[in-house]
Amino acid sequence: MRLIKMNYFKTQSMRLYEHKMKQTTQCYLERGSQYLMLHRTKKENDENHDKWIGVGGKFEEGESPEDCMRREVLEETGFNVTAWRYCGIVTFVHNIWPAEQMHIFVCTDWTGEQIDCNEGDLEWIDKQRLLKLPSWEGDKVFLRLIDEHRSFFSLKLTYENDTLKEAVLDGKSL
Amino acid sequence: MRLIKMNYFKTQSMRLYEHKMKQTTQCYLERGSQYLMLHRTKKENDENHDKWIGVGGKFEEGESPEDCMRREVLEETGFNVTAWRYCGIVTFVHNIWPAEQMHIFVCTDWTGEQIDCNEGDLEWIDKQRLLKLPSWEGDKVFLRLIDEHRSFFSLKLTYENDTLKEAVLDGKSL
Repeated sequence: MRLIKMNYFKTQSMRLYEHKMKQTTQCYLERGSQYLMLHRTKKENDENHDKWIGVGGKFEEGESPEDCMRREVLEETGFNVTAWRYCGIVTFVHNIWPAEQMHIFVCTDWTGEQIDCNEGDLEWIDKQRLLKLPSWEGDKVFLRLIDEHRSFFSLKLTYENDTLKEAVLDGKSL
Repeated sequence: MRLIKMNYFKTQSMRLYEHKMKQTTQCYLERGSQYLMLHRTKKENDENHDKWIGVGGKFEEGESPEDCMRREVLEETGFNVTAWRYCGIVTFVHNIWPAEQMHIFVCTDWTGEQIDCNEGDLEWIDKQRLLKLPSWEGDKVFLRLIDEHRSFFSLKLTYENDTLKEAVLDGKSL
């Protein structure tokens, strides 16, 4: 009976929340030839464990992409972003981790002082060096798009474990 | 005990799904000076009841914005979209309805034959006439942005019932 009730609840709850993919911002603070990167070393059960990624995180209810970007950057770095480029959306599909839509920002100006981040170590990394550090393979694809100052992109990246199986840009396979 | 179990399950399930806003595509099929519009007359408990909106609907797991756009347009109109512009994202915030992120597309080419839509009546509407039909007040704001072929926009619209209280474009109040 308990199982039935719980399955009923699960069904109702799945219905309420169906088709809501994880949504995050991924933000690259740019200072000359460097980005402020996060080396993810502190969180357990983290799909980004030991990888170098931009700062950012999950949307809260009612946030626009730039609301989420500004809140996450403030929380993780102490910086109050005052200028940015909204570069594109990456749809991340993986055989183990849940699908995710990442809204990619480059932050070009901010105020405030840098703080420690409780999700990893923050470090200013030269863009060329960044390409050699452990990160998701597909990050190189969108980092190139960002660097080219291309118009807004929609990039779908499909992974099997750590291997990028497919990259589709604006509906066309790369 | 059952209640405790159910609350435990609810907590776990809320955690899995937290911060996942409703995500949809809103698609304007363009034919000369007209858009193919949907008069929402058929669904119960519909925040769009009696309003004229673009076709579209909710994302499924792992879909990119253009995957969702192409599937929804095919399901609701019978058309297979072959060319499009991805125009922007609208963050819809309302005092009654759940927050929603709408990915706005203009579809400029397609193949196939038009079918009936089970969510309302499809009608080709002149863009000028569209502005006078019942729709969300903020739709006029992003329809103008679309018409101007502006670069990708992020527009946050905050409503109280049917009244648009605030419109913020790329982080700046309009």
